[in-house]
Order: sequence, then C-alpha cells, then structure tokens
Amino acid sequence: MAWAVKPDGQSSLQSVKPLSMNAKNYLKAYSQKANKFLDLFFLKKKALAKKIDPDLGKILQVFLDSSKGGKRARGALTVLGYESSGGKNFEAILPVSCGIEMFHNFLLIHDDIIDKDRLRRGKPTVHTVYAKKRGEHYGNSKAIIIGDVGAFLAYELLLSSNFSKERTLEAVTKLNEFLLKTGYGQLLDIDYDFKKQISWEEILKVRTYKTAYYTIVMPLTVGAILAGAPKSVLSAIESYGVPVGIAFQLVDDILGVFGSTRKTGKSNLSDIRDGKKTFLYAKALELLGAPEKKFLKRWYGAGDVGEKQIREIKKIIVSSGALDYSQKLAEKLVMKGKRYVPKITMDKKYQKVLESLADFIVTRES
Amino acid sequence: MAWAVKPDGQSSLQSVKPLSMNAKNYLKAYSQKANKFLDLFFLKKKALAKKIDPDLGKILQVFLDSSKGGKRARGALTVLGYESSGGKNFEAILPVSCGIEMFHNFLLIHDDIIDKDRLRRGKPTVHTVYAKKRGEHYGNSKAIIIGDVGAFLAYELLLSSNFSKERTLEAVTKLNEFLLKTGYGQLLDIDYDFKKQISWEEILKVRTYKTAYYTIVMPLTVGAILAGAPKSVLSAIESYGVPVGIAFQLVDDILGVFGSTRKTGKSNLSDIRDGKKTFLYAKALELLGAPEKKFLKRWYGAGDVGEKQIREIKKIIVSSGALDYSQKLAEKLVMKGKRYVPKITMDKKYQKVLESLADFIVTRES
Repeated sequence: MAWAVKPDGQSSLQSVKPLSMNAKNYLKAYSQKANKFLDLFFLKKKALAKKIDPDLGKILQVFLDSSKGGKRARGALTVLGYESSGGKNFEAILPVSCGIEMFHNFLLIHDDIIDKDRLRRGKPTVHTVYAKKRGEHYGNSKAIIIGDVGAFLAYELLLSSNFSKERTLEAVTKLNEFLLKTGYGQLLDIDYDFKKQISWEEILKVRTYKTAYYTIVMPLTVGAILAGAPKSVLSAIESYGVPVGIAFQLVDDILGVFGSTRKTGKSNLSDIRDGKKTFLYAKALELLGAPEKKFLKRWYGAGDVGEKQIREIKKIIVSSGALDYSQKLAEKLVMKGKRYVPKITMDKKYQKVLESLADFIVTRES
Repeated sequence: MAWAVKPDGQSSLQSVKPLSMNAKNYLKAYSQKANKFLDLFFLKKKALAKKIDPDLGKILQVFLDSSKGGKRARGALTVLGYESSGGKNFEAILPVSCGIEMFHNFLLIHDDIIDKDRLRRGKPTVHTVYAKKRGEHYGNSKAIIIGDVGAFLAYELLLSSNFSKERTLEAVTKLNEFLLKTGYGQLLDIDYDFKKQISWEEILKVRTYKTAYYTIVMPLTVGAILAGAPKSVLSAIESYGVPVGIAFQLVDDILGVFGSTRKTGKSNLSDIRDGKKTFLYAKALELLGAPEKKFLKRWYGAGDVGEKQIREIKKIIVSSGALDYSQKLAEKLVMKGKRYVPKITMDKKYQKVLESLADFIVTRES
C-alpha cells in the first residue's frame, strides 16, 4: 500500500487509487495514520501528566494501548463522512476522527467492566490489568476513572478542532446527542441481561441505540457536519447507517458465538457463558420447539455451563434456523442501507467505499 | 429571603440586597433557582427518554434526585464568576451553571462506587439504590453508565448555551481541561488509599488536582469566561481559588471525622473505617510519638476496627495537634486567597460575596 503514506507523510486518504479503494483498504490506510497521530498526541499528554505524577504517564499509556489493535472503524468513518461530503482538509479531520476513536475506547472500558470481559482485541482489558495488582474492586475503580479521563481527552480532541467554531460546536453537540443515545442503549442492555425471556424487538431496541447509531451514523455524521454537508445528507446517512449498523450487530452476535477467537481477539464462549441477550439467542428461543427451548434457557448464561453444553447450544442455534435467519437479515439490511448511498454523496469513488463498507460488515470475520 | 425570587420569577441573583449579600444567602437563592431549572430540564429529557423505554425515565429521575440536597456550590460559583465579571444575562448563565452541577453529580456517582460509600447527602448513593435490586456488580454497572449519561447531559447544557459560539467553545474547552485535572487527581487518590505511609505533600497534590481546581477555580473561571473576562481575572481566580479550595478540603477532612452526620448527611466514621488518606491522618502520623503512631497505623482503615478504636483515633488526632494544625492552616489559606479578591472584581458587592464565601468554607458545618 504505497499510497497510504506519501514520502512527505502529508498525504490524505484521498490519494487512495480508485481501483484499490474499498472499505478494507480505506480502514487499513486510516488506521496507520490514526495510530501515528495518537502516538504523538499521547506523547505530549504523557509528558504533561508525568509532571504531576509519573504514574499518570503510565496510566495514559495503558489507555492508549487498550485502543490499539482495533479496526479504528469509527475514526475511518469520520474521515469518510468528511471526504464524501467534499472535505479536503485531512490534517484537520484526523484529530477529530481520533477523538471519535478515543470516545469508543472510553465506552469499551466501561462496557468491559460491566460485562466482566477479560479479553479485548486479544489483550487483557483495562480493569483486568489493574485487578491483577490489587483485586477486582481496585481494577474496576481504576478502569472507571481511566475511562472518564479518556472521555475528557476525546472531548479535547474535538473541541480543539481546526474547523470553524460554528461547525466545531455543531459537530460536538451532535456527537454528544449520539453518546446520550448510546448511554441509554447501554442502560437498557444491563437490565436485559437479567431477563429470562427477551424478545427480538427488545434486542432490536437496545442494539439500535447502543450500536447502530453510534457505530455508523455517528462518525459519518460528525465528519459530514465538519465538511458543511446539508441536512438532506445527514438524513441519508441515518437511513444508510441504521440498517447497516443493525447488520453490523447481527454479525457481531454471530461472531460472538461462531467466530474464531484468533481472528476476533475475544472469546467465542463468553456470550453463551454470560447469557448475553443477542439476536441469535432471541431468534433461537422464538423458533425452537419445547425441549430445545428448555435446554437453551437452562444452560444459556448458567453458572454451571460446561463445554459440552456450549457445543450443544451452538448446534441448537444452527438447527433452529436462527443463525441462517440472522445472516440473511444482515444481508437484507445491508442491501436496504446501500440504496441511500447516492443520496449521501455524488462522488462515485466514495459511493464505492460506502457500498463496500456495508458489504464488508456482513463478510467480516473479526 | 423575599429577594430570592421576584413575583415574576425572572429575577437574577443580582437582586440580592447588598446587606443580605453573603455566601450563604447567595447559595440558598441560587439553589432554589437551579433546582427549579433542573426539574424542568429533566421533565423534558424524561419525556424523550420514556419514548425509548419507560425505565429510562425512572433512571433519569434517580440521577436528578441524587443531585438534590447538595449545596449547589459549584453552580452558584459559576453564576458568581459570571456576575462578578459584569455578566447580566442570568437566564443564559443558569443552564450553564446547572450543567456544572450535573458534572459534579456525575463525578460523585463514580466516586461513590470507588469509595463504596452508601450514603450521600443523607440518601442512599446511586450504586446502592441499584445494588439493592440485583447485587453489587449490577449496582455498580448501572451507576457507571448513569454517571456517564449524566456527563453527556451536562455537556449538552454547556454546548447549547445562549452565549456566543466563541465564548461557549472557550468555556467548554476550559471546563474540559479542569475535568481532566480532576480525573488525574482521582486516579492518584485511588492509589494513595492503598499506601500505608503517605506524606502531607502527596495528599496536597491529590487534593489540589482532585478538589481545589475543580471546586472553586473551575466554576468561577467558566462563569468569568462567559462574561468575557480578561486573562488577568482568570489568573486572579486561580490565585484565589487554589488556596481556598485546599482550605475547603482541609475542612472536608475535618468534617469527615468530627462532623455531625445529621448536618453533613454522611457518616463520620467512614474516613477512619476506609482508611481514607486525609490531611488529618498525614499530619497526625507526622506529629505523633511512636506508640500512638503504631496504634493509628494498626487501626486506621483496618477491617476489624471497632467503635472503641475509632473513638481512640479521634482522641489521638486531637491530642497530636493535627486537628488544630488543619484548622489554622485552613484559616491561613483563606486569608491568602482573599487577598486576590480585588483583582477578580472591582464591584464591592461581589468582593463581599467572594470574601464571605472564603470565610464560609472554614466555618461551615456541612
């Protein structure tokens, strides 16, 4: 990918050649630039923090490290939203897009505490890193505040943007609205994990708020606002992003049970062990006959579930048709979303990326 | 306090008559207006949230309720910073000041999880409310995200201010800097609670970052920026606020051990039981002879500490001179801070409030 970084290091993602321009290439090119920017940003932040206390420098490094190895999809989508609406100032959108990535990391850190997840992107989660030192409560305490600090740094990256004050304020305000939606989704999600019976519609509600808006609509919208996009484009982004975002979550739920741990970097047992209320689970419950339904309810999320029962649950999810249904629905939603691409941008190059991105979501393995 | 709210309900705090103008009156007048505004703001937010799910409406009420009964000092200081720099648009500063209050509530909710505090302002803390339903981890999970949602709502109140976009952006950016400082202080505080030996200087560092900037300098600065105050005023606010803020914390530490639970709304046993590393504790360790020092180290924060030992620890803190030292230092710091009042404002009326505020901090009982 010689086009990813020009010798002078100043190239934008716009230098991607049309033929190699697909979502995967776009993500990879962006990821390199974002990691480079974030390393520099945190170098400065660590230097300042170390003056207060050396420990703070180490903590900021833990925060940054925990964000690495991710796909940086939301950051890339911010740039994509910006460039597809005609934005040309890559140097200005890059810090904002990295701010969006830092928001994501902050939310994941809090999410991992709640879900008691020990692995993220193949590495120990932040609360696990600190729990090793002084137990669970200490680990959680540190991770709560490291998440908060990450959020403050993320806001800083957005608030200090080089765009006009009007657009900056509009973008941060809109972003903040999306974060509120995500928080609402997360609050519902916590409760849903305790419900024995959960409907497809309830899961759809949580996923729409917790994931669909936040993963696809939010970053594209923030980028588009900073490029000065009209309301019609923001509305087309929503029509594209919500179905594609739900498809993303459908695939996420599938990977959570049938994905390869090596590729996803997270356990494919934990959704079943923790009794995570996923699309797969709700659909299986809906489709199964009484004996299998009873088995699923007995073992899904049970404290004493073993590998044998997990294997059986996987089989049941397949035989119920829930896996097939989820896969087909994801494909259908992606098709639906793609119809709005021409309303987002007239630029054929970016239309291709947005379409390829939607396709990538249903074919991805991690 | 007939001056607090005019019959038309539109009066500002500027209608406070000079003679009755002291910090306590100012706080009380502000508190009424802030509570009224927040009730209305949350009424709208709850209506929107209920459309997604009725539970979200209840959760927002829990967040709002948890902020009530507080002194609303930071909100009042925001208005004070604004009015003392000549700001006249009370209707515009009120929502911003309420945003500052919501930030405080967000931080307290996370703080209470970390400190395992069960009472705040005489009521069960947010994590305790939810822990009663489904255990500790559930309570903490809910409280983490309720805190986050509170932060998003707080940012919303600031970002949607009626001030110019320039001033709004400057104020939010500055506020965000202070929040980062507070987060750093909080991260250090978590670790300090695990240290057996802690010096006065280390505690001073934590308290300066976690409390002094945040409690006094932050709200006054945000208000002053929105009134268009010059840099010299912001710098005088820092010179006033840091010593006064440390005095505030010195008194807080005293109240945490010697205060009346009825008046403070929190236990006066928990600092000792939890082994909170306070100014009082560090000074006592420094001043005590070997036997009492050994006793203090043995029982302060020990899992098996009883009422008898707590009574003895209180006696030791008094006899060591640590209580006396803390009280005198608080008075000295308040004197120091008050010297900068004339550089903050030329208006005699507001000079009086700022002086009375500093005095109130060392004489308060809650």
